[in-house]
Amino acid sequence: MGASAENAVNREERPAPPSLLPVDGVLAAACAAGVYPPPRDDLALFSLAPGAAVSAVFTRNRLRAAPVVAASRNLARRRVRYLLVNSGNANAATGAAGIADAERTCRAVAALGGCEPEAVLPFSTGVIGERLPVDKICRALPGLHERLDAAGWGDCARAIMTTDTTAKGYSDRFDLEGTPVTVTGIAKGAGMIKPDMATMLAFIATDAAVAQDLLDRLLRTAVAQSFNKICVDGDTSTNDACVLVAAGKRPGAPLAAADSAAYRLLESRITGLCIRLAQALVRDAEGATKFVTLRVEGGADDAECAAAATALATSPLVKTALYGADPNWGRMLAAVGRSGLPDLDMDRVALYLGEVRVVQNGARDPEYAEEQGAAAMAQEDVLVRVVLGRGAAAADYWTCDLSPEYVAVNTAYRS
Amino acid sequence: MGASAENAVNREERPAPPSLLPVDGVLAAACAAGVYPPPRDDLALFSLAPGAAVSAVFTRNRLRAAPVVAASRNLARRRVRYLLVNSGNANAATGAAGIADAERTCRAVAALGGCEPEAVLPFSTGVIGERLPVDKICRALPGLHERLDAAGWGDCARAIMTTDTTAKGYSDRFDLEGTPVTVTGIAKGAGMIKPDMATMLAFIATDAAVAQDLLDRLLRTAVAQSFNKICVDGDTSTNDACVLVAAGKRPGAPLAAADSAAYRLLESRITGLCIRLAQALVRDAEGATKFVTLRVEGGADDAECAAAATALATSPLVKTALYGADPNWGRMLAAVGRSGLPDLDMDRVALYLGEVRVVQNGARDPEYAEEQGAAAMAQEDVLVRVVLGRGAAAADYWTCDLSPEYVAVNTAYRS
Repeated sequence: MGASAENAVNREERPAPPSLLPVDGVLAAACAAGVYPPPRDDLALFSLAPGAAVSAVFTRNRLRAAPVVAASRNLARRRVRYLLVNSGNANAATGAAGIADAERTCRAVAALGGCEPEAVLPFSTGVIGERLPVDKICRALPGLHERLDAAGWGDCARAIMTTDTTAKGYSDRFDLEGTPVTVTGIAKGAGMIKPDMATMLAFIATDAAVAQDLLDRLLRTAVAQSFNKICVDGDTSTNDACVLVAAGKRPGAPLAAADSAAYRLLESRITGLCIRLAQALVRDAEGATKFVTLRVEGGADDAECAAAATALATSPLVKTALYGADPNWGRMLAAVGRSGLPDLDMDRVALYLGEVRVVQNGARDPEYAEEQGAAAMAQEDVLVRVVLGRGAAAADYWTCDLSPEYVAVNTAYRS
Repeated sequence: MGASAENAVNREERPAPPSLLPVDGVLAAACAAGVYPPPRDDLALFSLAPGAAVSAVFTRNRLRAAPVVAASRNLARRRVRYLLVNSGNANAATGAAGIADAERTCRAVAALGGCEPEAVLPFSTGVIGERLPVDKICRALPGLHERLDAAGWGDCARAIMTTDTTAKGYSDRFDLEGTPVTVTGIAKGAGMIKPDMATMLAFIATDAAVAQDLLDRLLRTAVAQSFNKICVDGDTSTNDACVLVAAGKRPGAPLAAADSAAYRLLESRITGLCIRLAQALVRDAEGATKFVTLRVEGGADDAECAAAATALATSPLVKTALYGADPNWGRMLAAVGRSGLPDLDMDRVALYLGEVRVVQNGARDPEYAEEQGAAAMAQEDVLVRVVLGRGAAAADYWTCDLSPEYVAVNTAYRS
């Protein structure tokens, strides 16, 4: 079978997300460099127009992968021209040699693009603790660089997948001050996901022009509302990164005022796109059979809502009950009880499954009948709503169930 | 089939732990009250000699079950004569009615024993959120009270089981200031176990005489070294309690000096017995196929060791790798990295599987060969040793793996 036929098979098994819009000022391409066994695509390259503003947030895990170290250092130079991403190898826990490996790939891209090596941000995802196959990556780069194209986003969404079963990407297009603006983003991640910074890789770009400090602010806001509100298994990865590019190809001066209507619109649309990407990660979570919205209300502040949601989202007993579609509200209430909220008065807590009130004043609602809860839990999309009775803060979080398939995937897969 | 034949079957399926020694001043009995479908034993009663000192610690979950509320209140009166324990129903999240239910059972015991109701401590374990079948329990109590016997410990160990597959109990006997002393303890718990107070039920008694404040101190020390160092799934139960009785039947004045050799010996032996009970809980954890010792060294203090151990013990990715006997040290290192230690320098961290050094200075030991790690992980008892390089604190913790069986048990069982 020839290479193109193999690639056709590969693409059939791992289809690109439909209809991603090109972003003026951003070119992209992907290929099979051999980090995974060929012909699986495992290398993606983005080139950014000169002058593009770039923001990024990285994992808070103290075990920072070599590319995270290199990318955050290069980002500080504020002259980013390329994003290089490989799947199949995380280049994490690889010491000084791992950082040298990441730098070698940056130099190879810089030589092709005629820029300084520090203008390249490297990203990796895959198995921890093994040396990056730099030679394979460098051999693949010239061909990859030649194929950079505005239409390459979908291929990149496929190439960054690890245990993901679907490629994830969305586009949005809307008018900003009378001119159309495009936002396109892709993301990967199916396990080792916990709300503590961007627990996965995501790359989002717009053709709008945004001043650097405002873009930093926009990314922090968007991530707080999206990727930091999801949890698959409570494990924060070593390689997480979320990158936002403002290519600046629209006419006029960059957005620079946080209180302008244009900025607020852009922030809201990019946040919305990040939420869609984050939810897509949860829907494709390892072994997941349910998409669960945790709506926590009545917290004294956002941190209380997050603490209760995290306790629920990381409780194996809650997650196995969700898998079994068992309206086991006692486990949910117990998870809230151990979530560390100071002097939490359980007698004021209420809990709903979908629209059904199950717990009132910390005990079973006398009106509640188990069939109602069972019906709510039988859905593929389940809403668990907890009312803490402590204040006015409220937020949604998203998680999934824990199935035997999660165990099987992670027993077999060296990730 | 007659009742005695049924009970014989029941006892064959759930054998009592071998050779528990009676404790002078403590009588015990168990029976099938019908909280579980008969003929399974589900009710245990202990009577304590007048003047016995009793200490207890309870769950820190804010969702405190009704018996926890009642028992801790009654304990404060310091005149405990009975411990009443049922399995099959936790009497948790049952509101004021649940507390009234617990008090009704206390009154029934008090009527039989000729004491005040506040001299009875109630304990429950099982499903959350359902009313306690008080009538069934009260009907069973007269017969149970009649059968109180010094040899009843083994039956009680069986009667308090929920998803446990083996009854857990140990005895110890040693000389204390020239007189033999006995310690016997039983425990239950197989899931919803996380180091944050006595994450299960445990009842331990000695015939030694110990002053109340010293007994309180002894229990805190013993629990910190045993039950608070185990973790099955990270879920802290609503009903946890650990009770220590000093029946005071030995001659001489109660132990009252913390710096006496006799006190130190007693503390050390009771702590040792609690460690054996705690480890027995982990060995019988839901779905567990491995017993894992997490040895954390080089922490700045005990809290750092506990934080790293908890991150490892609650990581689904680490636990599934343990199940798969996969020496996936990258996941272990990543768990340490997210354990919240301030400014943790991963470049100083080392990790061993058994005797094999896998990670040195935050990266794979150049000498390490995967076959060595695989051999260490293939054992039923696995040692994971993490050296943090921050100080002199060190401690052992105990946990287990995450298997498909854990998911199956908790999908099917309404606990």
